[in-house]
Amino acid sequence: MPVAASRRITLLTDFGTVDGYAAALKGVIGSIAPDAVIDDASHDIPAGDVHAAAWALAGYWNSYPEGAVHVVVVDPGVGGARRPLALVADGRFLVGPDNGVFTRVLADASNVTVVVLDVPNCDVSATFHGRDIFAPAAARMSLGLPLVRLGSEITDPVRFALPVATRDGAVLHGAVVHVDRFGNLITNIARDMVRDGAFVTIAGQTCPLRRTYSDAGPGELLAVVGSRRLVEVAVRNGSAAALLGAQRGAAVTVDGAAS
Amino acid sequence: MPVAASRRITLLTDFGTVDGYAAALKGVIGSIAPDAVIDDASHDIPAGDVHAAAWALAGYWNSYPEGAVHVVVVDPGVGGARRPLALVADGRFLVGPDNGVFTRVLADASNVTVVVLDVPNCDVSATFHGRDIFAPAAARMSLGLPLVRLGSEITDPVRFALPVATRDGAVLHGAVVHVDRFGNLITNIARDMVRDGAFVTIAGQTCPLRRTYSDAGPGELLAVVGSRRLVEVAVRNGSAAALLGAQRGAAVTVDGAAS
Amino acid sequence: MPVAASRRITLLTDFGTVDGYAAALKGVIGSIAPDAVIDDASHDIPAGDVHAAAWALAGYWNSYPEGAVHVVVVDPGVGGARRPLALVADGRFLVGPDNGVFTRVLADASNVTVVVLDVPNCDVSATFHGRDIFAPAAARMSLGLPLVRLGSEITDPVRFALPVATRDGAVLHGAVVHVDRFGNLITNIARDMVRDGAFVTIAGQTCPLRRTYSDAGPGELLAVVGSRRLVEVAVRNGSAAALLGAQRGAAVTVDGAAS
Repeated sequence: MPVAASRRITLLTDFGTVDGYAAALKGVIGSIAPDAVIDDASHDIPAGDVHAAAWALAGYWNSYPEGAVHVVVVDPGVGGARRPLALVADGRFLVGPDNGVFTRVLADASNVTVVVLDVPNCDVSATFHGRDIFAPAAARMSLGLPLVRLGSEITDPVRFALPVATRDGAVLHGAVVHVDRFGNLITNIARDMVRDGAFVTIAGQTCPLRRTYSDAGPGELLAVVGSRRLVEVAVRNGSAAALLGAQRGAAVTVDGAAS
Repeated sequence: MPVAASRRITLLTDFGTVDGYAAALKGVIGSIAPDAVIDDASHDIPAGDVHAAAWALAGYWNSYPEGAVHVVVVDPGVGGARRPLALVADGRFLVGPDNGVFTRVLADASNVTVVVLDVPNCDVSATFHGRDIFAPAAARMSLGLPLVRLGSEITDPVRFALPVATRDGAVLHGAVVHVDRFGNLITNIARDMVRDGAFVTIAGQTCPLRRTYSDAGPGELLAVVGSRRLVEVAVRNGSAAALLGAQRGAAVTVDGAAS
Repeated sequence: MPVAASRRITLLTDFGTVDGYAAALKGVIGSIAPDAVIDDASHDIPAGDVHAAAWALAGYWNSYPEGAVHVVVVDPGVGGARRPLALVADGRFLVGPDNGVFTRVLADASNVTVVVLDVPNCDVSATFHGRDIFAPAAARMSLGLPLVRLGSEITDPVRFALPVATRDGAVLHGAVVHVDRFGNLITNIARDMVRDGAFVTIAGQTCPLRRTYSDAGPGELLAVVGSRRLVEVAVRNGSAAALLGAQRGAAVTVDGAAS
């Protein structure tokens, strides 16, 4: 089923901005699709951190309307054997390297088609596929070029393992899957898995599940259901990550599984 | 009096960009107002620093044309009792939490109307009103929805106290109200309050009022009237904040009040 | 020959974003050219670093289509004697201070016209020409105002010396001209100057010229031809700058000049 194109294109990279790499992508897009409106998602993903990119992307890819095009260039394997991909997922277009960066989109979307991008022989650098492959493909998708014109369908895009929370009676065992800018420790335990009044334990500290940050005193540890409907551990007006010394992967226990 | 809507929307947050929160706002706006053009003002406001956000906002809200929509999400009290606001100020629309972030706009604008946003009951998270309340309201304002349709008018938005410079004969007593990226110390002493040839004292050091940075030698302390027509203390090609160890709130004296 | 205008305008500054300076430029542009689409190139150029700005600009100015307008405000001499410039270079418009920031554009472009901007007498601050001179000029250029209406032509814009690589038999002597976000050390030695199988020496370490980053093992030093067709020294999944302690200006030798 064809998807209406949009002129809105987002960029997610680990380029920073000072070297002019991100701007080069914008120029290429503007050359092919002059009416494109380019939204920076981020250029500050830690260098080569595919997990961080996958997390960020999961936060906005489907808050955009159908037809939007999302470019992801966190690509430590650029120039090597990894495949360049384009996707349609629930009506949004995505383009980027086949290194797991689309893992969460693939898990969340109902309808997905994936193709390996045909790479032109000429004028493609071995170090900057963002400019030479992904940006041109994104611009063409925003103009309505069907996915099937961009490459050949595949069914085995790279996915990394997403840790799954487990249940043991009234106790849930999960893990921190992301630490955000505020030092909030976001877990893989979904809202539907926990009951009101549950307690969350991490790094030897236990705190109650509250409705929102301001239900705790300043500096106090608490748990809330965050914006992605996942349990997160936070400190009001502070950093739970700093207080607890916890990082991505830290074990989390919830006493109070939903029945 | 109705105000013409514009498709230009700005975002000012303390989200950073790496977590995908800022991009989620953009997606929501793009879903409601597909022709919106979104300008990032900043996503790097220090976490929860309402004063810093108010300062930044004062620098651009009315450099934009009438009809522009400014979204401000520096919101340490999210989910608590603080009210969500929308404003029309001198023809520009603003939306954000009622925590003082609009203090400088309210002080500078000639005509202001403020409403408390009606909050829908469904699907609003307790931790991300930027995505669930402020971005949708901004998008609707950019489409021309009148302010009165968004909520009920109020007359008591939160304002923090703005420190006022005082005069004692030929001497002015003021304070640093902002330290900018270059380490310039911006005071609350306005251009009209000082005469040419005045001297400015801060942290035990005295320097002359000059016309521009390059009227001093490299590394030399000087005072100038900055872009907001306020006296600021600077070091040519250096940081006055680092040289003097001065911060927001530091006392400043000017010898040479205008007569 | 007239150049078609575009509504796409880029910004390159050392303002950061938190002080509202960059947003003020956007507002001024939006006031004069309501249909402008503004792309952030970067606001993170190190304060006053004209060389870094010139490097970044060289990476994207001509990836944009003809008619695009590039604003550059890295301007340590603001308010002093340095001239404000506008350029047409190979069909793209540029505006910024006459301090060398356009050196690489002037070196790379085939057709360039440069004018000194006429500065209005009223309402121009001595410290913020980005807002008061460059942004308005850029907006007017995007609306199609011819360059000759903006000021008087000159032929002597400031250029800094670009270091040139030299050849001594089969050996090339060059220098690092830029260190990028990933710690890659980019040299002034062009692809055409080296043969396959060459070896690159820097800071006492020698590494082979490879096709792309992933041709080396993780942590291993290698050289590649980068996206600007210049030899660069890199570490796969690491920072060559950190490993070697090398900076802009470091000497580089290549054994294996092209014949």
